[in-house]
Parts: sequence; structure tokens; C-alpha cells
Amino acid sequence: MIIHPADRTGSVKEYYFSKKNREIAAMNADGRTEPVINLGIGSPDGRPPQASIDALCSSAVQDGVHAYQPYIGIPELRKAFAGWYGRWYGVQLDPSSEIQPLTGSKEGILITSLAFLNRGDKVLVPDPGYPTYSSAARLCEAEIVTYDLVEALGWQPDLEALEASDLSGVKMMWTNYPNMPTGAPADPALYEKLVDFGRRHGIMICNDNPYSFILTEDHYSILSVPGAKECCLELNSLSKAHNMAGWRIGMVASSSDVIYEILKVKSQLDSGIFRPLQLAAVEALSQGPEWFADLNAEYRRRRVAAGRIFDALGVRYNPDSQGLFLWGRVPEGVDPVALSDKLLHEAGVFITPGFIFGHNGEKYLRVSLCATVEKLGRALEKIKAVL
Amino acid sequence: MIIHPADRTGSVKEYYFSKKNREIAAMNADGRTEPVINLGIGSPDGRPPQASIDALCSSAVQDGVHAYQPYIGIPELRKAFAGWYGRWYGVQLDPSSEIQPLTGSKEGILITSLAFLNRGDKVLVPDPGYPTYSSAARLCEAEIVTYDLVEALGWQPDLEALEASDLSGVKMMWTNYPNMPTGAPADPALYEKLVDFGRRHGIMICNDNPYSFILTEDHYSILSVPGAKECCLELNSLSKAHNMAGWRIGMVASSSDVIYEILKVKSQLDSGIFRPLQLAAVEALSQGPEWFADLNAEYRRRRVAAGRIFDALGVRYNPDSQGLFLWGRVPEGVDPVALSDKLLHEAGVFITPGFIFGHNGEKYLRVSLCATVEKLGRALEKIKAVL
Repeated sequence: MIIHPADRTGSVKEYYFSKKNREIAAMNADGRTEPVINLGIGSPDGRPPQASIDALCSSAVQDGVHAYQPYIGIPELRKAFAGWYGRWYGVQLDPSSEIQPLTGSKEGILITSLAFLNRGDKVLVPDPGYPTYSSAARLCEAEIVTYDLVEALGWQPDLEALEASDLSGVKMMWTNYPNMPTGAPADPALYEKLVDFGRRHGIMICNDNPYSFILTEDHYSILSVPGAKECCLELNSLSKAHNMAGWRIGMVASSSDVIYEILKVKSQLDSGIFRPLQLAAVEALSQGPEWFADLNAEYRRRRVAAGRIFDALGVRYNPDSQGLFLWGRVPEGVDPVALSDKLLHEAGVFITPGFIFGHNGEKYLRVSLCATVEKLGRALEKIKAVL
Repeated sequence: MIIHPADRTGSVKEYYFSKKNREIAAMNADGRTEPVINLGIGSPDGRPPQASIDALCSSAVQDGVHAYQPYIGIPELRKAFAGWYGRWYGVQLDPSSEIQPLTGSKEGILITSLAFLNRGDKVLVPDPGYPTYSSAARLCEAEIVTYDLVEALGWQPDLEALEASDLSGVKMMWTNYPNMPTGAPADPALYEKLVDFGRRHGIMICNDNPYSFILTEDHYSILSVPGAKECCLELNSLSKAHNMAGWRIGMVASSSDVIYEILKVKSQLDSGIFRPLQLAAVEALSQGPEWFADLNAEYRRRRVAAGRIFDALGVRYNPDSQGLFLWGRVPEGVDPVALSDKLLHEAGVFITPGFIFGHNGEKYLRVSLCATVEKLGRALEKIKAVL
């Protein structure tokens, strides 16, 4: 390499799962009788709505759908997102100016960070939390200020403690409910407090909302709080709610001036989403309650099966946990990293140690519900055999 | 908006075409008898290979294709890109480490810039040239140093003049042949000189190569120069060569250490390309000479039709121009911006004025070949009627 990489990438490390997946692949390649059961990443294994697959294929065979699409998304998709927010979250969004479709909500985290964070600006990120909030901040050379989520407070931020701290230079705060990795629910009262906190301190609350349809019947958006658009944005996604993780379709919603700033970055990065994918997303967004009833019936069965694994390990968890994961605290004296390694190497089952989500996750393990009841049952058998 | 945008977006303006398209949409909405004929953007209107559409649809209906895909792309796609480079460019690439698939090569421009440019680093960008090279540099707060492309030198950089200038702090140089907007061909001798120039000055040559199959039978990659991987990277794309602009599939190739730095940024931004799209790309990359023969027979007819428009306007051009556009110099005393506006408002035909590609494009006009011969013929009629 003839030049040095940019400083902004110096602190960005290889993703933990990337390394671990290499290790698992090497184990599988080593001629095991049974492949490793990977209960790590939350990548839905189910099928998308059939109407979405049909829309993709019936559009892709046509003429006139293969060219660049508008940066701002086709009107059909913007309207579908607005309708979805209206029906499920009770939030009115102007489809022409308050919504920007994304190639998955993950890119929204980096694009938002690039649009708003200068070098040295401070950004509040949850501990434990999704590592990408911090990685995106690092790529902007922003300063990461973690805020604690602890079980005793229901994994909600202690806003009073935050207010008592030095908030100078803080520009953004990442929040995420139903929470990953803890499974804590969204709470309208918390959203009200967050909007108030953001407004009083000049901090934009960035709520990442991909889990709001998983293992919950109550669907909340921070944008439902009056005045929220002035100091908040929300990311959302079809990845989990519609089993479309690989399809890469998400969105960001906020006031039109925030969306315009995001579009300024986004339009330097791509050239619009493939039209047949957008039409498939429109179909997904028009799914009715029966879609989510079926989806959650399956995830409830899986949550029970995952609970049995935690029971066998003596791990304490909330059986009503929301989202795609079960999160539990290991018994006193047990090292979750050592336990995770033992389970991987002796039982051939991978369960994520909580430390990768931050200091406050160090005593925890996380089991993905993106595995069938049968697979979770088989994992339980194999784990029991080595305990 | 409760916070200020980041400084890095301050100098990024709305894309010229974005504004112009709004103007054209307003004209069309105003009840014209015939919609504006837009010869602006180079967005191929043809169909992709049927095998690609078939692969997309036959994959999308299956189970197990809807989850997240690897950041590094599926092995089938990496091998297909490597095979394509071997067959057409005579370049050997290690599919496991020297190729990174991209959601279109446009994102490669920003990701490369983020991976390598610190604030204040200098980057050489061509004038005239694709505006995104500069926009991406601005988002990194890098310093843009334009280098001249002039007709008298065949739209090639004057490397001797560049060597005589102050190159301190220059880290990267963007090049692009067949050149957009000028249609100048790729030239193996130039690529050799560029590799030598990059190596001697510690400058990474970033060659953007999406047009190498359009209106040319000679397919060149800068990576075919011995030692090029050490100081070059190359972006490539299925957008133009396979009529798949909307599908958003591209790649970057270089040495494994460069690719690793790019992956560090890319993996913070997305979660892999939809598997059915990757399988569709594999089919596109395995197209034989007959695909390109058909494609170019059509573009040759269009180049003649576009030439007739320039003939009518007294615009001088190269009839053997390569790539998706015809580029021509207006007669002395004619203002191309005024002419473009006159054609738009009086004839209902949009032709891009060359100034948007830089100072050296100010005396030029650019006609897109992404319009049928019939449409180009109709544009000619309407233009003749107002001259």
C-alpha cells in the first residue's frame, strides 16, 4: 500500500462477529460430524411476505425498471412508509419531505453521523448497545460518551444522572427500544422524557427502531411525542419486521431540514434503490396484523426454547423479553467469555458473550432467536452433554 | 433542526441534475403536449441480460436467501469478478482478498475517500470530470487539486506539468478512461505512465473504469500494468456494461491491504448485498462477446443520431467517442449554458452544458446516448424547429 489509511479508520476494528465467524467456519471445515449451531447474529431465517417476492419478480422482468432511481426513493415507497408510520405508530409524516429510504437502516447510522458530527463533537451511545453507533462516530472522529443502561433501571438511561454530568459539546444521543441486546421494551414515558431532554440540551435524539414489531404488540415511535421531529430522528427497517434483512431496505424519518442534510450525504453515496426492491418493500409495508401475529407466534416458541438453554446454564433472564434476542445474566463467579468459548469448543454451540456490547454487558450472554425451535432444542441437548 | 450540520457537508451542494430534473418535472407537469426529451443523465434504458433477471427471480423465491450476506460478498460473485478481470482485461485478481463487491461503484468513491483521506490531504481530480470525485473529497474535508484535461492533449493529464507542480501532500489521484464526459479512450501507455507517476510520488491512482465496454472493442484496466496493484485501485461496475444501473452492483480491486482498509469502512456501512442480486451479477459477468456486440451495435446507431444533433448546432465532436455520451465544442461566440436553456425551454430538449464538469468543460455540450435512435431523431426535429 503506497499511502497510509486515514486516521479515522485507525480505531475501527474488525467486527467481533467477523472474527468469530471465521473461527466457526474453520471449525466446520475441520470435518465435524455436525456443524456448529450459531446462535450469534440476529439474521432472520424466515421468508419475507410472498407479496414482496412476487412484486420483486414481476417488476424485474419488465422494461424500464433497470435504470437509476431517484435518490429520494420512488413516490410509492415514500407513501408506503408514511402510511406504515400512520397506521402502526400513529405518526404523521409528509412523504415528500420527512422520509428518506435507505439501503438498510445500518447505513443510516453512518450517514447521520457524517451529516451532523464534526471531529471532536460528542455523541452519547448506550452501554450496552449496538457497536455500530460507536464505529460510525469513530469514522467521524467524534468523541464517544457512553451512557449506562443497567438492569436495575430496566435498561433505561438515567436521565437525571446524565443531566448532572457535563453535557457540553454533546450533539447527538443514540437510543434503541425495544433494546438490543437487552430486550427491554419501548416505553412512551421514556420517549417523552428523551424528547424533553434533547430539546432542553440541544441534543438530537437518534432513535433506532428496527425491533418494534418483534415479540411485542405495542408499536412505539419516538416521533409520536409532540414536537419530537424538531429534536429527533428515527431509523427503521424491514429487516426484522418482514424477514428482509438481506434485502437492505430501511428508512429515516424526521423534520424536512434534517432529512435534507441526510440526503446531502446520501446522494454522494448512491444512486437510488433498485426499483423492484422498492416495489417489494411497498408490499411488505402493507402487510396486516396477521403477518405479525404469525411472525410473533414463531418467535414466542423460540423464546421459550432459548429460555431452556439459559435455564440449563443457570442464566437469569426476562421471559417477556422483546426483539430478536434473549439476554441473561450468568451466575455469580461464572465468566461469560470462558463459558461462551467452552460451549463453542466442547458443545459446538455459539452464544454471544455480552461484553462485546459494552462494559455493562460483561456479566451477560445473548442468544439469537433466529434459529428454529428444533435447532435451539438440539443446542440445548449438546450443551447439557458438556455441563 | 436542533443541531448544526457537520462542517463537511457545508460545501456539498445539491447535485446539478437534481435541480434540473425538478425544472424538467415542473415543465412536464405544466401540461405540455409532449414531455421534455431528457438527454442529460447516462442511465442505460436497455434490459440486463435475461440470465441475470432469471437468476434474480429463481433465487428470490427460495428459502435461505433473505438473511444478511457476508460483507465481503458471496464466493460465487468474487470468483465471477476475478474471472471477468482475467478474461477481458488480462488481470489476475485473488478472489479471496483483492476484490470487494460494492453497492454500485459510486459508493466506492466515497468509501475510498473515507478510508484514505484525512482532513487537509490533497487529492487530484480531473477537470472536466465526474463531480462525485470532488464531493467525496469535500465530505472528507480533503483539499481538492484539479488537474487539467484539454482537447489538445487528447483529454489526457499532462503528467510532466503535474510533476513540475507542488505535489506535497497529494495522496490520491482520480482517473477515468474511457473518459466521462469527454469520451476519450483508455490508453495502455497512459496507464503505464500513471502507475510510474503514482509510484514515484507516493500517490494512489484511483481509476474509475465503468465505461470500458461501451463503444470500444479494447478493454483496458490500469491493473494490467505490472506492479499496478501496489499503487492503484480500480472501481468497476455492471451499470453501463450490463444495463444494470438501477441494480447497484459494482466492485473495487487492488492489493489485499488496500481492500482490507476499504472493507473497514464498508462494513460499518452495510451488511452485504442481497444474495439474489449477487447471483444475478454472476450471470451478467459470464456474458460472452455477443452481449457486447449487440449492446455496441445499438450505441453506435445512437452515436450517429446524437452526432446529427451536434451537426445541426454546429458543435464539433469526435465521431469515434467512447462511453455513454457524445461531447462536443460549441462554435466560437456561442454560450453553451444559454444554448442549453434555449433548447430546453423552446425545443423541450435537455442537453447538459459542460461547465458542470469543470472549467475546462465550459465551451462544451454533452448528449447522453441513453435514448433510442427514435428519441434522438425526434429531439433533432424539435431542435431544428427553433434554430
